[in-house]
Amino acid sequence: MIIGGEAAGMSAAAKARRVAKDATVMVFEQSDVISFGACGLPYYVGDFFSDASEMSEFSPEQFAARGIDVRTRHQVTQINIEEQTVHVHNLATGEYFEQPYDRLLIATGAEPVIPPVPGLKEGLKDGRVYCVKTMNDGIYLKETITNPEVREVAIIGAGYIGLEMAEALERQGKNVRIIESASHPLAGTFDQEVAEWVMDALNKAGVQCHWQESVLSLKEDNDHRLLLTTDKGQYQADLVVLCTGVRPNTRLVRDLGLDMLANGAIVTDDQGRTSIPNIFSAGDCATVIHGQLDKAVWIPLATYANKMGRLAGEVMGGLDKHFPGAYGAACVKVLSLEAGRVGLSERDAKEQGIDYQTVVIKDKDHTNYYPDQSDILVKLVYETVSKKLLGGQVAGGRGAVLRVDALVAAIKGGLTTEDLGMMDFCYAPPFARTWDALNVAGNVAK
Amino acid sequence: MIIGGEAAGMSAAAKARRVAKDATVMVFEQSDVISFGACGLPYYVGDFFSDASEMSEFSPEQFAARGIDVRTRHQVTQINIEEQTVHVHNLATGEYFEQPYDRLLIATGAEPVIPPVPGLKEGLKDGRVYCVKTMNDGIYLKETITNPEVREVAIIGAGYIGLEMAEALERQGKNVRIIESASHPLAGTFDQEVAEWVMDALNKAGVQCHWQESVLSLKEDNDHRLLLTTDKGQYQADLVVLCTGVRPNTRLVRDLGLDMLANGAIVTDDQGRTSIPNIFSAGDCATVIHGQLDKAVWIPLATYANKMGRLAGEVMGGLDKHFPGAYGAACVKVLSLEAGRVGLSERDAKEQGIDYQTVVIKDKDHTNYYPDQSDILVKLVYETVSKKLLGGQVAGGRGAVLRVDALVAAIKGGLTTEDLGMMDFCYAPPFARTWDALNVAGNVAK
Repeated sequence: MIIGGEAAGMSAAAKARRVAKDATVMVFEQSDVISFGACGLPYYVGDFFSDASEMSEFSPEQFAARGIDVRTRHQVTQINIEEQTVHVHNLATGEYFEQPYDRLLIATGAEPVIPPVPGLKEGLKDGRVYCVKTMNDGIYLKETITNPEVREVAIIGAGYIGLEMAEALERQGKNVRIIESASHPLAGTFDQEVAEWVMDALNKAGVQCHWQESVLSLKEDNDHRLLLTTDKGQYQADLVVLCTGVRPNTRLVRDLGLDMLANGAIVTDDQGRTSIPNIFSAGDCATVIHGQLDKAVWIPLATYANKMGRLAGEVMGGLDKHFPGAYGAACVKVLSLEAGRVGLSERDAKEQGIDYQTVVIKDKDHTNYYPDQSDILVKLVYETVSKKLLGGQVAGGRGAVLRVDALVAAIKGGLTTEDLGMMDFCYAPPFARTWDALNVAGNVAK
Repeated sequence: MIIGGEAAGMSAAAKARRVAKDATVMVFEQSDVISFGACGLPYYVGDFFSDASEMSEFSPEQFAARGIDVRTRHQVTQINIEEQTVHVHNLATGEYFEQPYDRLLIATGAEPVIPPVPGLKEGLKDGRVYCVKTMNDGIYLKETITNPEVREVAIIGAGYIGLEMAEALERQGKNVRIIESASHPLAGTFDQEVAEWVMDALNKAGVQCHWQESVLSLKEDNDHRLLLTTDKGQYQADLVVLCTGVRPNTRLVRDLGLDMLANGAIVTDDQGRTSIPNIFSAGDCATVIHGQLDKAVWIPLATYANKMGRLAGEVMGGLDKHFPGAYGAACVKVLSLEAGRVGLSERDAKEQGIDYQTVVIKDKDHTNYYPDQSDILVKLVYETVSKKLLGGQVAGGRGAVLRVDALVAAIKGGLTTEDLGMMDFCYAPPFARTWDALNVAGNVAK
C-alpha cells in the first residue's frame, strides 16, 4: 500500500508491481492527478508549454492497465500500525473505510511553508498570493497573470522555484521583484561566489532584487493594490508568489513513533525503510542517505523521489536493493544562466569540520573562435591533504549544468583535483577548450 | 629544445619556462605561425568566424616576452643524438646552423595521408583538391569556395574533420558529397549504432553519402570539372576536400633508433619520454599511454597534444609528473547532431578479448514539456561479470557530448553500470529527465 501518488509513490507502485507479481499494489492519492511533478510549474506559468496535463506523466488509467489499484481523491486519515490498516476518506463519495496493508509506503511529499507574515493567508484565499506546488496552483496562477492589469509581481524567496518563477514571469512580460531574507539566492545550497552570477543574471534581465530583506506584512493599499512592507521598505504589487520552500508533509504519521528529523522528515535507511520495519517512506516527506556524510538528510528533490520511490518499491516487492547515496546534485536555469552544484558546499565542509580548500576559476565554455562563447565559473571544494573532491558548483551559459554531472561521477569515484586537472574530457571547438574549465579548476587547485 | 611550435611544443615551452627558470627554452617551427590548432579549420572555412589568426592562440612575440626563444620559419633537418645537436635551416635567410641541446622534445605533429589515388596529387597542386591541416589550407580553401561556380564539393573520408567539413561546406551553400570506404562514418572510433545517427544527420541535411565506396581516380572531364571515379560510380565535382586522416610526421627521427609504432608514431612513456632518455615527444607524432589498456597507443587529438606537451615540459624542466592515461574521449558536431565517445568501443573490447556486454538505449534529453527536446542515444560497453564501465558513446542534440564527460569521470573512477544507474545526476526540466539518459542506460544494462 502506498500513500501518495506523486513521483515517489508511483515509482514505487510501478516497481513493486513488476517485482511482486502476486501482490496487490494499491495507491491512495488525495488529489485527482498522479505522477505529477511540481518542477514543471514555472515552465507552465511561463508558457513554455500550454497543456497542464503534460506535467502529469501517467494517468490513473495507465497504471490501472498495469494492474495497480490507484484511488485518486482518496485521503488517508489515519494509520493503525498495530492492526496494519489505514483509514481512508473517499473525497468523491464522502465514504470512509478501512484498508489493511502488509507493507506500507508513505509518500506524502512536501507542503509549502507559509511564513507567519500578516496578510499572506488572506492573500492566498483571495487569489492574490500563490504558492507553486500543485497543478491547480499553476493553472490558477497562469490564468491570473493573463490579466494585463497584473503588472508588478513580487516573488518571496529566491530558491530554485523562486528563481524559475522569476524567469517565467519575466517571460510573461511582468515586472518582477524578488525579496529574499538571505544574502544571496540559493542560499541553502550554493556559495556566495556562484550565487553572485545568479544575481547578475537577474539584474541584467531587469528583475528588482532585494537581498537580506524580510517581508513583515502584506495588505491592500488605497489603490486596491497589494502593499508589501519589509524591514527595509514598502513595495506595491499586483500579485505575490510565495516561494519560501517546503517542509515534509508528515502530520498524518506524526504520532506513529517513527524516527523523524526535527523538521518532520521521516528518517529512512538505504532501503527506504523507516524505524518500523514494514513501513517505508520515500520522496519529499522522507530523508535520504547522503553518500558523503553517511547519514540521513532531507533534500526534497525530484531525483530522490524517483530513485528512492523505485528502490522502496523493489524492496517492498522483495528485492534486496540499497541506495548508493545522495550527493546533493541540483541545478537551475535562471534566464540566460545555468547553475548547478553537487556534493559539499564550502559552508557544508566548514560545518562538518573538514580540513578543506576551495578554488574558484572563471573561464570560457569553448574556443574563442566558435560562436556564442560564454563565461563559466567553477568552484571546487576539496580535502586539503588528499585533494579528494568534496563538492563543485558551476555557473555559466549553456553546458554549465551538464559539467556538474562530470563532477558527480568524479566525486562518486573518489577522484581528486589532480585527477580532474588531467581528466580526458571531450574536446571539439563547439563544446570546450582543449583544457576544459573543469580541467583548469583541477589544475589551479593547490 | 623543442622541435615544432603547435599545441604540444608550445605547451611544453610554456611549462618548461615556468619550471626551469634558468634554462634556455628554444622552439624551432618551420611555418610562420605557432600555437596553431587545425581543429578550427572547418569552422573558419564554414565562416563561423572570419579572422584566421584566431586559430593561433599566441604569437611568437608573446612567447618571446615570456623568455622563450621561438624561431619560426626554421626547419630542423637533422638530429645528432651523440653530439646532442640539431641541424637547422633558417627558411627566411637560407642559412644553416647547428644548435646544441640538453633535453629535446619532438613535437612535429602529424601530416595528412594522401591516398595513392591517381590525380589527387595533381589536384592538390592546381588548387582543386585541398587538405585541411595548415592555416594556409584553410585560407586558400575558404577563398576558393567564395567562387560561386564552386557548387559541388566532394569530401573524401568521413572522420572527424570530414564530417566537420561537410557541415562547413553545407553552411556555405555547397552541394556536399562524402565518400568513405568504411561502412559508416567515424569508423575508427564509433560503433555502427551510434554512427547511424551521424548518417541520418547527414542525410537530413541533404549531404550525398557514399559508404563502403573507394575513390579510384580523379581527373578533369570534358566540362573542365573534376570527375571522381569510385568502385561504384562516377561523380562530378568542382572541388575535392581530402579528409583521409593523418599520420605521425616523424621522418626526421626515423633513423635515430627511437622506439616507434608501425605507423611511425614515437613511443613515449607516461612522462613523454622516448626510448632515449633525454629525448621526449608529445603531440600527434607520439603515442600516449592508454588509461585502460596500459600501453602506448596513437590517438592524434588536440587534448593529448596539450596535456602531454605540458607534462613533457614539466618533466624536461625537472618535475616528476606522470600522465594518468588517455581514455580516448573525442567528439564531433555534425550539423544538428552531437556525438561523443570515450573508452573502449565494442570493437575495441572484442579486439582486446574482454568478456564484455553492451547496452544501447534511446531516450529524450530532457522533460517532454520543456521546448526543444531532442533524442539521445547512449551505448555502453562494460565488463560482463564486474559490470565495470569500459566505454560509452552518446549521440543526440545539445548536451549529448557533455554527457560523455560524465562517462569519462565514471570510467576513470572505475564505476559500474549499477553506479551509473543510480548516479545522482542534476535534474531540472531544461536539462534532463528525472532519470537522465545515462541513468537509464546504466539501469537497462544487465
